[in-house]
Amino acid sequence: MSEQAADDVDDRRRSIGARRNPDTERAILDAAEAIMAEEGIARFSIEAVAKRARAGKPTIYKWWPDKTKLLLDVYHRQKPASVHMDTGTVEGDVFAFLTGVFAHWGDTGAGQVFRFVVAEAQRDEAAAESLRAYSAERRLQSGQIFQRGIDRGELAADVNVGLCADMLAGFIWQRLLTGRIERDPAQLRQTARQMVRGLLA
Amino acid sequence: MSEQAADDVDDRRRSIGARRNPDTERAILDAAEAIMAEEGIARFSIEAVAKRARAGKPTIYKWWPDKTKLLLDVYHRQKPASVHMDTGTVEGDVFAFLTGVFAHWGDTGAGQVFRFVVAEAQRDEAAAESLRAYSAERRLQSGQIFQRGIDRGELAADVNVGLCADMLAGFIWQRLLTGRIERDPAQLRQTARQMVRGLLA
Repeated sequence: MSEQAADDVDDRRRSIGARRNPDTERAILDAAEAIMAEEGIARFSIEAVAKRARAGKPTIYKWWPDKTKLLLDVYHRQKPASVHMDTGTVEGDVFAFLTGVFAHWGDTGAGQVFRFVVAEAQRDEAAAESLRAYSAERRLQSGQIFQRGIDRGELAADVNVGLCADMLAGFIWQRLLTGRIERDPAQLRQTARQMVRGLLA
Repeated sequence: MSEQAADDVDDRRRSIGARRNPDTERAILDAAEAIMAEEGIARFSIEAVAKRARAGKPTIYKWWPDKTKLLLDVYHRQKPASVHMDTGTVEGDVFAFLTGVFAHWGDTGAGQVFRFVVAEAQRDEAAAESLRAYSAERRLQSGQIFQRGIDRGELAADVNVGLCADMLAGFIWQRLLTGRIERDPAQLRQTARQMVRGLLA
């Protein structure tokens, strides 16, 4: 290898750690998403992602130390913004959340990606840690639905926001993991009502 | 092989399909439970169970066509009766259920067994079918908590019992699958209260 070529490699290596290149990041996430959609989890590997994205495996491992972290980023990027809305009532927000998440899981490959992440987390400690961190972040986000309700006096002041968020997440997880994504608006409306009525001030 | 020995083998084979021998069934379930407790899922196989139980693999496959079914029977056998109690109020029943299930999952290997069953069901169609059937049966059972509440006029008549059971299951599943089994009675009491208050008549 010439000295120049060696320097180039060194520069590339240094740049890996320094910051994420947005184009490369997007190419890797696109590749991961396409492989999941076209081939499923059985053929999903960092090697396959690297090949499809024309990226180096070390780059991928640097940014996503395990494939669960990469899949969670694919999953999160796919999520529509409309899942979290301020409709003015907690029941309305919960209904919008349930409708948005189940539509997203049912219409895209996102449900499959998330099922796999949950499954991996039961066997692998790094995956479990990634899922716990992701869930904690999501709990804060969906907890805002209930916090807004407390703040405007709609919900009782002693409502435990974290428990509410866990109940919401639990309901959708259990449905996803037993293959029973709910799309019927009447069922989702009743779920939102039953979940929220007892929290009212 | 003598004619007598061949007849013995035939008799054994016929008896496999005819009915389960309770001693053999118990030995197989004991062996499966011990392997899960001592070695975990990584070393769990029908072969290992057969060896430990001194049973034939065909017998095990005849009674449990996939290892998820066998694990669900191990799991179910471990479950204490006290999980379903009629305390006189829905909140009391839900509190008893949550306390009993989390204690059971935390104190025995049952939580690990169930985590594995859920994970398997995300990858394998036979496992998914076993989990769906098991969940449907459990939904009927825990739905009785809410049905009793309707029958005695404690809960509103339009409460959807199946949705209540799904919310209850969802909450405990999500906690188990993210490694957050809840043992604090105050938290469990608040969970039961938040879940039930909105269902009251």
